[in-house]
Amino acid sequence: MSVTAAKGFTAAGIAAGIKENGNPDLALVVNDGPRRAAAGVFTSNRVKAAPVLWSEQVLKGGQVSAVVLNSGGANACTGPKGFQDTHATAEKVAEVLGRGAIEVAVCSTGLIGVLLPMDKLLPGVETAAAQLSEHGGEKAAIAIKTTDTVHKTSVVTKDGWTVGGMAKGAGMLAPGLATMLVVLTTDAALESDVLDKALRAATRTTFDRIDSDGCMSTNDTVLLLASGAAEVTPEYEEFAEAVRQVCDDLGQQLIRDAEGASKDIKVEVVNAASEDDAVEVGRSIARNNLLKCAIHGEDPNWGRVLSAIGTTKAAFEPDQLNVAINGVWVCKNGGVGEDREKVDMRYREVHIVADLAAGSETATIWTNDLTADYVHENSAYSS
Amino acid sequence: MSVTAAKGFTAAGIAAGIKENGNPDLALVVNDGPRRAAAGVFTSNRVKAAPVLWSEQVLKGGQVSAVVLNSGGANACTGPKGFQDTHATAEKVAEVLGRGAIEVAVCSTGLIGVLLPMDKLLPGVETAAAQLSEHGGEKAAIAIKTTDTVHKTSVVTKDGWTVGGMAKGAGMLAPGLATMLVVLTTDAALESDVLDKALRAATRTTFDRIDSDGCMSTNDTVLLLASGAAEVTPEYEEFAEAVRQVCDDLGQQLIRDAEGASKDIKVEVVNAASEDDAVEVGRSIARNNLLKCAIHGEDPNWGRVLSAIGTTKAAFEPDQLNVAINGVWVCKNGGVGEDREKVDMRYREVHIVADLAAGSETATIWTNDLTADYVHENSAYSS
Repeated sequence: MSVTAAKGFTAAGIAAGIKENGNPDLALVVNDGPRRAAAGVFTSNRVKAAPVLWSEQVLKGGQVSAVVLNSGGANACTGPKGFQDTHATAEKVAEVLGRGAIEVAVCSTGLIGVLLPMDKLLPGVETAAAQLSEHGGEKAAIAIKTTDTVHKTSVVTKDGWTVGGMAKGAGMLAPGLATMLVVLTTDAALESDVLDKALRAATRTTFDRIDSDGCMSTNDTVLLLASGAAEVTPEYEEFAEAVRQVCDDLGQQLIRDAEGASKDIKVEVVNAASEDDAVEVGRSIARNNLLKCAIHGEDPNWGRVLSAIGTTKAAFEPDQLNVAINGVWVCKNGGVGEDREKVDMRYREVHIVADLAAGSETATIWTNDLTADYVHENSAYSS
Repeated sequence: MSVTAAKGFTAAGIAAGIKENGNPDLALVVNDGPRRAAAGVFTSNRVKAAPVLWSEQVLKGGQVSAVVLNSGGANACTGPKGFQDTHATAEKVAEVLGRGAIEVAVCSTGLIGVLLPMDKLLPGVETAAAQLSEHGGEKAAIAIKTTDTVHKTSVVTKDGWTVGGMAKGAGMLAPGLATMLVVLTTDAALESDVLDKALRAATRTTFDRIDSDGCMSTNDTVLLLASGAAEVTPEYEEFAEAVRQVCDDLGQQLIRDAEGASKDIKVEVVNAASEDDAVEVGRSIARNNLLKCAIHGEDPNWGRVLSAIGTTKAAFEPDQLNVAINGVWVCKNGGVGEDREKVDMRYREVHIVADLAAGSETATIWTNDLTADYVHENSAYSS
């Protein structure tokens, strides 16, 4: 399953010793062709990790033969040495596989500002290469975990072709709670421009609308590799939808595994004047710490929803706003609506609808509650 | 002291029964003249509480005879009835004091979306008026507390004139952690346009740069009332500096009493290309939940500072950024700097310097750490 569900791919996941606790920390995904078209989207953070700077260059060529991913260190803010290390990693993969380094994408995740232990990473590449297998997708997904409690994979199989993928992290492409790394593979025969179009369309409404804690990573990367091994070229719309489904599924898995979270919050903005307005309002609600605490306390505190909407530039009139929490319209026309006691907050999923009464556009942002566990996990991360 | 330190002012603070726990909840500040010039600044949230909408109208006249403030309810998102209640409160104060209602400012703080118990508030106005005293400043400051653990007052006395004030809340004008209400008084003889200029200049670099949790209130209000009773008209610069000092002092008291906080974090951005850049970067750092958790854990996690800087549009080059935490330059030229083990994080105040190496402008934003106590306090607020 995972990245090896599609034909033409092998993968491996091993413990190279990058993580001090001995857990798996190095993954390799190889495209055995016959094609090797690829596309990628990266963090919009201006402080980009060395592997992001490298992989952006790789993707400009539209071809990826292999992806090497490590957990246990982000290789971000590591200066020229960090970039040299990324380059050396790609060269090592190229050497072992007999490919060109400029077709080897590199992804890293872990603590910022620490150089990778290259004396462990480079031998690890050899070990991983020796274990490459058509059944290695699961192990690869396990090797990229950091604070993830479970590994995340997804597959959509269509008529003769497949899209599969793995993800780590809990956040969004930009911003992200922690680094989010995603590798998607398909055996469909498609060129890189088609992959790029489908991937950007898919991430825009999936990973880009997951906003666990409003923090943007230096390392977020989503790659889509196409081997062409199925010898099928699907219609664009059908392929794009399959990519979107896999991204959506992996995104939901990220939200459900977000650090310290006890609630998954779906913020649905409706009747906005534009999609941009809907996204701006959804993000503002999703990033409101006071609201996220209230949801944690199972308190349907719609006042905090309204105060978050009020900070945006979106088109709306304050006295026309409506808010529903778990199906109960607790705020009508900017004031008190149905009895808040009717709101059942016992379940993990919480559904907030913000009606701007200003148009017909909509957008959904997913976030999590803010919990003491989140604080604990993130105040002890580097110690 | 407090709002009654300046001559020409009386105040009172009483328990009107708005709060169910019987704590003081109604304050009255009266300007007995001979002048009654005033200025005000209000939340920039587009969802404004009824008392903000009312008081904005009052301040357009440039004259304030009295301010009535209640805790125990924000009167926000309460529709036309909420506005009628604010109006009725001003009318009651006007009636009791024999002034015009259009010169009575109203401030409210507490839960959003709940109507005020007018059957308790209006009699409370009479009780408060009966207790007005030149020594009532302290009691007024106590009556406006919500989650504040201490009341906040400040006074600057100059040659023959005084500026004093009281504040509640823990946040900033826009945004604010909870509602921030501030009343400043002076016995200097000044017109409302001068007061307005001095107040806006002062709040821009004090309350506006306190960002406890990035959340903007619907009720934030800062008022400055001048009685002229000292019969002195100070130079503008001297007066403006006195107002700035009182605002700065009250702002620091707000930060030190922020909900659940264990650290006060001074984020100083230096060598920015513009002051706007410095403020944008400072705010981005101050709002980064991951960094705020790290500081709580006494972890000098400069990578989270860089990733916060990277989300801004400010002018900088990633490989020229420098970051100091408590005097140790842990990040130099975008990479690892001095040994992070040298950073002493034991004390309550934490000083982060972000050097953008892009110009000569600077700005300082104050914030707090993110703690489990913050989560607890804000997940149980309305229950």
